[in-house]
Amino acid sequence: MTSPASAGPAYRRLSVEERRAQLLVSALGLFAHRPPEDVSLDDVAEAAGVSRPLVYRYFPGGKQQLYESALRSAADELESCFAEPAAGPPTERVARVLDRYLRFVDEHDAGFSALMRGGSVAETSRTTAIVDEVRRAAAEQILVHLGVDRPGHRLGLMVRTWIASVEAASLIWIDEDKAPPAGELRDWLVDHLLGMLAVTAASDAETAGVVAWLLPQEEPGGRVAQLAERLGGVLGGAAHLL
Amino acid sequence: MTSPASAGPAYRRLSVEERRAQLLVSALGLFAHRPPEDVSLDDVAEAAGVSRPLVYRYFPGGKQQLYESALRSAADELESCFAEPAAGPPTERVARVLDRYLRFVDEHDAGFSALMRGGSVAETSRTTAIVDEVRRAAAEQILVHLGVDRPGHRLGLMVRTWIASVEAASLIWIDEDKAPPAGELRDWLVDHLLGMLAVTAASDAETAGVVAWLLPQEEPGGRVAQLAERLGGVLGGAAHLL
Repeated sequence: MTSPASAGPAYRRLSVEERRAQLLVSALGLFAHRPPEDVSLDDVAEAAGVSRPLVYRYFPGGKQQLYESALRSAADELESCFAEPAAGPPTERVARVLDRYLRFVDEHDAGFSALMRGGSVAETSRTTAIVDEVRRAAAEQILVHLGVDRPGHRLGLMVRTWIASVEAASLIWIDEDKAPPAGELRDWLVDHLLGMLAVTAASDAETAGVVAWLLPQEEPGGRVAQLAERLGGVLGGAAHLL
Repeated sequence: MTSPASAGPAYRRLSVEERRAQLLVSALGLFAHRPPEDVSLDDVAEAAGVSRPLVYRYFPGGKQQLYESALRSAADELESCFAEPAAGPPTERVARVLDRYLRFVDEHDAGFSALMRGGSVAETSRTTAIVDEVRRAAAEQILVHLGVDRPGHRLGLMVRTWIASVEAASLIWIDEDKAPPAGELRDWLVDHLLGMLAVTAASDAETAGVVAWLLPQEEPGGRVAQLAERLGGVLGGAAHLL
């Protein structure tokens, strides 16, 4: 609880932009850990230490506008996680992007879950457009590291379905009390991508070219080497089929 | 348009259950090819050749109740697609399930898309619960063919993320005017599953056991053999890393 004496000066000290940003941070803090149904305008006002009418002055559209603005700001934050210099072994770059992504998921667990699962009254064509934009940004970033600008049908679909599988894995991870540790989940997801790339390369010339371009950038004893070595044993079991 | 003379006798001829089923079929026919926003109760009444009050008599909850009932019936139909005898090469079984699934997606394109994309006013916690139930049923059926009843963490997550990737692929497929042909998409999705199984087996003992149990059930020259042969070339490029 903030007393009028301490809230008063704060009112005057913040510029319009600062106040708006402060309200958004408070809203995002609440929407991150609860489904939108469980956050009221009063909660946001209380968390920001301001009055309900002040919240309305900045967000005349009320809770829905606050929710969509908070989502917009979370989406920007998430998209910034995807940026990764195109240097070093590509699998390590993907691993670093996944580390940041999983940290974001961890920090926005219940809100992320409510948004991605759907069925919330706060979900509109605008909120789904924001989610789609983030998915597109993720696909574009992955393609940067695959050295592809405009992927063909099959490679494009593969990248987008891998992203969908990462999203599904995040929701399962939240549901299962964040087990296994994020680092282990990240390794599984990198392996999924490598598995999908390998089988796609086996019958798609563009992807085969990508894989041939990626492999020399990996390090001896690195992620790909370790996986390839362990895979040898698994594929050996298929020898009788050949 | 149905004239009163022909609609009249039909009114009397149908039992309560038959009439309800007829209305549902009409509703599903409409909801399959349009987002729920674009289907009115009048549309359903007209498609069924009955009056609007009659539709209300059977579905007092109006359009939302009709939508949820139609979804329930579509979900039952979809779940029945998943059943496949546990005989023959497992990859061929998965391919047949995917064929039926993609036929369902094809026949319910716009409605499937609207439902899975979210953001519709017709979406509620009840509709998302139905979608989740279908996903669970799909995962259970895949696990039957993997010979696993209660999968460990990693194998369970892998199967569920593959199902999410199939879902995403279906939405992309609808968006891209159903290119490539369903049979080709089905082959890509089977390959994705094999790729994910292989890399998961490389570091998960349970999945390695599953793969070892599955391989002898595949046929020489079959799906797995063809993929393994083509993969040899791709993995050869990783030789310098080992």
